[in-house]
Amino acid sequence: MSKNKYQRNVLNQLSPVQLLLLFYGIAVVFSTVLLSLPVAHKPDVNIPFIDIMFTAVSAISVTGLSTITIVDSFSTIGIVFLAIIMQLGAVGIMAIGTLIWLILGKRIGFKERSMIMTDQNQTHFDGMVRLIKGIIYVLLIIELIGFLILGTYYLQYFPTAREAYIQGFFGTISAISNGGFDITGQSLVLFKDDYFVQFIQILLIIFGAIGFPVLIELKEYLFRKRTERNLFHFSLFTKVTTVTFFVLIVIGALGIYLLDMNAFFKGLTWHESLFYALFQSVTTRSGGLSTMDVSLLTETNQLFMSGLMFIGASPSSAGGGIRTTTFALAIIFVFTYIRGGNSVRIFNREVYNDDLIKAVSITLFAITLVIFSTLVLTALEPLFTLEEILFEVTSAFGTVGLSLGITSELSNISKILIMLLMFIGRIGIVTFLLIFKRKKKKAKYHYPKERIIIG
Amino acid sequence: MSKNKYQRNVLNQLSPVQLLLLFYGIAVVFSTVLLSLPVAHKPDVNIPFIDIMFTAVSAISVTGLSTITIVDSFSTIGIVFLAIIMQLGAVGIMAIGTLIWLILGKRIGFKERSMIMTDQNQTHFDGMVRLIKGIIYVLLIIELIGFLILGTYYLQYFPTAREAYIQGFFGTISAISNGGFDITGQSLVLFKDDYFVQFIQILLIIFGAIGFPVLIELKEYLFRKRTERNLFHFSLFTKVTTVTFFVLIVIGALGIYLLDMNAFFKGLTWHESLFYALFQSVTTRSGGLSTMDVSLLTETNQLFMSGLMFIGASPSSAGGGIRTTTFALAIIFVFTYIRGGNSVRIFNREVYNDDLIKAVSITLFAITLVIFSTLVLTALEPLFTLEEILFEVTSAFGTVGLSLGITSELSNISKILIMLLMFIGRIGIVTFLLIFKRKKKKAKYHYPKERIIIG
Ligand SMILES: [K+]
Ligand SMILES: [K+]
Repeated sequence: MSKNKYQRNVLNQLSPVQLLLLFYGIAVVFSTVLLSLPVAHKPDVNIPFIDIMFTAVSAISVTGLSTITIVDSFSTIGIVFLAIIMQLGAVGIMAIGTLIWLILGKRIGFKERSMIMTDQNQTHFDGMVRLIKGIIYVLLIIELIGFLILGTYYLQYFPTAREAYIQGFFGTISAISNGGFDITGQSLVLFKDDYFVQFIQILLIIFGAIGFPVLIELKEYLFRKRTERNLFHFSLFTKVTTVTFFVLIVIGALGIYLLDMNAFFKGLTWHESLFYALFQSVTTRSGGLSTMDVSLLTETNQLFMSGLMFIGASPSSAGGGIRTTTFALAIIFVFTYIRGGNSVRIFNREVYNDDLIKAVSITLFAITLVIFSTLVLTALEPLFTLEEILFEVTSAFGTVGLSLGITSELSNISKILIMLLMFIGRIGIVTFLLIFKRKKKKAKYHYPKERIIIG
Repeated sequence: MSKNKYQRNVLNQLSPVQLLLLFYGIAVVFSTVLLSLPVAHKPDVNIPFIDIMFTAVSAISVTGLSTITIVDSFSTIGIVFLAIIMQLGAVGIMAIGTLIWLILGKRIGFKERSMIMTDQNQTHFDGMVRLIKGIIYVLLIIELIGFLILGTYYLQYFPTAREAYIQGFFGTISAISNGGFDITGQSLVLFKDDYFVQFIQILLIIFGAIGFPVLIELKEYLFRKRTERNLFHFSLFTKVTTVTFFVLIVIGALGIYLLDMNAFFKGLTWHESLFYALFQSVTTRSGGLSTMDVSLLTETNQLFMSGLMFIGASPSSAGGGIRTTTFALAIIFVFTYIRGGNSVRIFNREVYNDDLIKAVSITLFAITLVIFSTLVLTALEPLFTLEEILFEVTSAFGTVGLSLGITSELSNISKILIMLLMFIGRIGIVTFLLIFKRKKKKAKYHYPKERIIIG
């Protein structure tokens, strides 16, 4: 038995969820150890264990919430470690997430369309390897480009070339992985008037959050001969998630602007307003970097952003939340019901009822989770307002990483709760709920049905 | 054509929703006019029009939120008017609600079981008349008993017999209609140590909130000969709504106690704690009367109570909210999905998929409505905290009537928004959404189905 075959058997024996938990457990331990090494810390800085673990979980889940100031606590080596952990978090869980989808079988639209596995004789495992290779390939190329552009551009901002390229390196990985950590000490506020940096960061964040299957389909499309392109069909998944993603960005930016039109945005030029609103909207998809102190916005705006963060990014991306497709299908579900229809069509395709049911279940479960966590935190943290707590909870669940500034002041129990939320947000409710899933037993007989008055 | 037949034709031409809106419109106008009459006011009291209309809507929707102090503003005649409006609100909309259910046809469990219409040859309309008569009969008997008991008992509390019986009269109607208004000036705080009054009030509130079909089935059951009772089958609806109702009361009381164990309940005796917790739990089902100032509870408890109010009372009752059965089916829906099952059984019956879908749609729509209203109110009322606003919104939507004390300080636009919420909460999301419902068209052809990755 070759080594490769042996590995395959071990992997096959684990259920997808076990595999994921195993990976996650190892990753958290590994990251915590790495960040605990004295060489990772600045001299004379003593970071409490809970905060190192919090940073590790936050980085693995590419959230970016932080109980400490990264640049004051970690040495350059620590910062490189952090970048590696974010990278691992973004690729690793996504890869395993994709594996789970493949193992669950027959449920990935783009698989059946034999786009990724062109040869149907390939095994799932080989198909997965190819898929993950594709993802890593795309990711590394984008990162290299981002690093070179940002690092070079940062030469004007930082005293030494070394510092500029370190900032470019960390900034690129933090954005594309949607990690959201910063080593400037104040996120991207430094670049609040530099639209070029913001534009690059927006592109990188979107690359990380829009979903890897989308990127791969886009690559397939672009690599085709121009004459064959009109034969290429984007999957329904790609259409739904991409449209939802950009609609959310536009609505988000508009909403953020309108809700603070007479407050934060008062007196700003149109381009300042545009970039502030646009960047903060994009970052709620899951990026977590920010060009301003979001606590300056009105309370209503903070709640609005909490809602955006709750929705989060595309499935199979570096982002969290209930995910764009879940949100889209839940809305479609309710509208279909309201209009009395019984079949759902989008882009000339019908959606499976199972998928609708799944989307709605996830949404309800996620709402319950967020409400419950918020309730617990209001009891644990009587000093913080409900907005601050809700914002923190949705930010963790959406693995966004924005905060109204309470993260570092949370009690240890609250920190653990936030870690759990980041974890669940990252692996996604679908995967999380698999932990509780039982084998389907076909019912042998049916009970009589009876109507129930509702509402 | 007899007068009766003519009426029937006019009623038949209106859609159920039109009928309801017509009734509601007339009722609001009628109540506003009635409460505007000088004879209804205390001498030299000038009540702004918006507040009279608010009181009218609050009474018709049996919510009990009030922008003014009833006892300081209205004369005895005004108070009697208010009692009549509440009574009308409780019976009227419920009766029309039942009519809608009958007209929508084949959807009422207890109808098919020919419990109410024992003779299948009766028309729907006659069946409805009989149903409504039954409801009014049950209601009046309970009210008469309540009035006699409370009025007589109140002789020890109030200086004159007249005042005692007026308090007994108003208190009974306010409780059983779940109207929640008070003419003591401080709800039931006066009776915070009188467990007898509280017990009677709890019974009355439950009678009003548990659902009229339940009461009628119970009456049928009790009027049977003892030997025939084991042949009697309660409908699935009655079982689900009753169990959910009482489970919510127990969980509510426990939760309210536990969340304030070290605050409000500290130093109280076990029976004081029991009655405070129990009464406040019962009142969130939709009653709205209170034996304490709920703003004294912890923030977490206020949020918890907001959740309870959002769920509300049973369908076809005097209460509001998403309703107990909706809540129960939504939970069943999510749990079924989590466990990977595909058929839902309760009490040895299977639930219709349509009913589950309806319950989940209602829940999601209601959550959206509450979140949206809360957002708007935070923008309109920057001075109030998010808890205060959320509490007010869920209280209005659940037609409960509890408040953290901000109702009278709301701006006029906010008052109108709260009125709308009371209205929607009262008629119920199901009925409300009928406004947007289109005639079902059978799809002539189907589009190809395609999977979508979720979560
Ligand atoms: K993030
Ligand atoms: K009420």
